[in-house]
Amino acid sequence: MTRAALIEQIRNKGSYLCVGLDSDVNKIPAHLLSFPDPQFEFNRQIIDATAPHCVAYKINTAFYESRGVKGWESLAKTVEYIPASHFTIADAKRGDIGNTSSQYAKAFFETLNFDAVTVAPYMGADSVKPFLGYEGKWTILLGLTSNPGAADFEMLQTMEGLLYEQVLKKSSAWGNPGNLMFVIGATKHEMVSKIRKSFPDHFFLVPGVGAQGGSLSEISLHGMNEDCGLLINASRTVIFASAEEDFARKAGVVASQYQNEMKAFLHDRP
Amino acid sequence: MTRAALIEQIRNKGSYLCVGLDSDVNKIPAHLLSFPDPQFEFNRQIIDATAPHCVAYKINTAFYESRGVKGWESLAKTVEYIPASHFTIADAKRGDIGNTSSQYAKAFFETLNFDAVTVAPYMGADSVKPFLGYEGKWTILLGLTSNPGAADFEMLQTMEGLLYEQVLKKSSAWGNPGNLMFVIGATKHEMVSKIRKSFPDHFFLVPGVGAQGGSLSEISLHGMNEDCGLLINASRTVIFASAEEDFARKAGVVASQYQNEMKAFLHDRP
Repeated sequence: MTRAALIEQIRNKGSYLCVGLDSDVNKIPAHLLSFPDPQFEFNRQIIDATAPHCVAYKINTAFYESRGVKGWESLAKTVEYIPASHFTIADAKRGDIGNTSSQYAKAFFETLNFDAVTVAPYMGADSVKPFLGYEGKWTILLGLTSNPGAADFEMLQTMEGLLYEQVLKKSSAWGNPGNLMFVIGATKHEMVSKIRKSFPDHFFLVPGVGAQGGSLSEISLHGMNEDCGLLINASRTVIFASAEEDFARKAGVVASQYQNEMKAFLHDRP
Repeated sequence: MTRAALIEQIRNKGSYLCVGLDSDVNKIPAHLLSFPDPQFEFNRQIIDATAPHCVAYKINTAFYESRGVKGWESLAKTVEYIPASHFTIADAKRGDIGNTSSQYAKAFFETLNFDAVTVAPYMGADSVKPFLGYEGKWTILLGLTSNPGAADFEMLQTMEGLLYEQVLKKSSAWGNPGNLMFVIGATKHEMVSKIRKSFPDHFFLVPGVGAQGGSLSEISLHGMNEDCGLLINASRTVIFASAEEDFARKAGVVASQYQNEMKAFLHDRP
C-alpha cells in the first residue's frame, strides 16, 4: 500500500487505529475451540467486527509460531482474509545478515503478501536494507519501544545522543517516509514530540496504547503531523474485550470508541 | 542439552563444528526437486553425511519462512530428524516484549524442541529473560555480529564502552554460562581475545567462518577456553560444497576437514 493510499484510508475513516491480532489460543473464548481452526475463526470474527473502525491490522507472529506449522497456517489464512483496504503489518521483529534478511523480506512481502514488517535494528544497514527494496512495501524499524527493557540499551547514552536517536537518525537515510516507519513506544509520550520534531514526515507505529499503558490523547497531541503520521495499535484491550460469545461484538465496540476519539483528534488538529 | 553434555560431545568427537542449514531451495541440487519435500530431503542427506563430524546444527529460520507453511513443515521435520546427540540451534534472532518473547520461547523450546535459539538484544531484559527460564535450554544472544552493519550500532561508543560490550556485560547478569551463549562474529578475531578475557566461561557461537570470511585458526587461538567454549558455524562452505548429486558426500568431506583442524586445535591447547 502506498503512503497516499494509507493517508486516504485514515481520512475517510477518521481513524488511525491498528488492531493487534495477538491471538493467544489460550485466551480465546472456549466456544471457538470446536472450530477446525479456532485461532483463525477468532481472527475472522474480530476482523469482521473491527474492520469499519480501524485502518490496519498487526499480526504478532509469535502467537502463531508457538503453535508450529498449524499456527503458520492460521497466520497465512488470517492475512489473506484481511480486506485489501486495510494496511497489514507482520509484527515479526526480524533482522539478520543481508542474504538472510532477504529471505525474511521474501517470506513476509512475497509469500504472505503483508504491506509491512517490523524489523530490529541491532545488526545495522545490511540487515535492514533488503526489506526496503520492495516497491509499495514498508519497513517498520524498532526505535523506542514501550517495554521496561527499553531502558537497558535503547536509552543508552552514545557520543551523539541516545542509542534509539542514533537508530532513527542513521536508518532514516536508508529509506524514506514512503517506505520506512518507526516503532515509537507510547509509554514515553514526552519523547514523542521531540522525535516528531526530528522526523516530521515519517509514520510512527505506536504499540503501547491500552494494556501497555500509553495514553491515546497524549500520543495524538504530541505525535500527529499534517498527514496524521500515526498508526496507534491496540491489541488486548480490543481483541480480549470479552471472553464470552459476544467477544467480537465487544471488540467492535472498543474499536469504535477508539475511532470516535481519533476522529475528534483528527478534526481538532489546527 | 546441558553444558556438561555439550562439552562431552565436543571432547568425544574432537569437533566444535556447527553446520548451518541455510538450505536455500534455489541453491539445492536440481535432482532433489522431484522429492515431495526437496528442502527436507537436502537436509536429511546433509545431516547423514555430516553428523559424524559436527556437534551442532543451526537452522536459519528465514530460509524456511520464505516458503511459508511448507517451509515450516520442512523446518519441523528437519529438527526432528537431527540425532539427539547433536545440539540444535534455531537461528531465529527473535526478541519482543515479555509476553511475546514467551510465545517465541514456547515456539522453539516446546513446540519444535530446539536446544537453543538466537535472540536479539535491542529491547532489553524483559525481551530476553523469557528464553532463559527453560531448564536445559539455551539463549544465544547477539553480541558482535560478522556483517558490515555491525559497525552501525553494535560498535557505537557509549559512556561505558562499545554497545556490544554493554550488551554482553548487562546480559551476562540475566543468565549464566549454563544457559546463555553469545554470538561473536569471526571477522573481528582481534576482538575475540578481549571478549574471552571478560567472559572466560561462556560459550561463543561464531557464525562467520567460511563464506563470511573468518579464520578458523585465529578464532580457535583467541576464543578457546578450558571447556573449548566455542561452537564455530559453517553454512554455505559445507552444505553447498557441491551443486551436483555428490553434494552430501562433498559436504561430509568439508565437515571432516573442519573436524580434523579442530581436533588439532583442541589437542594443541596447553
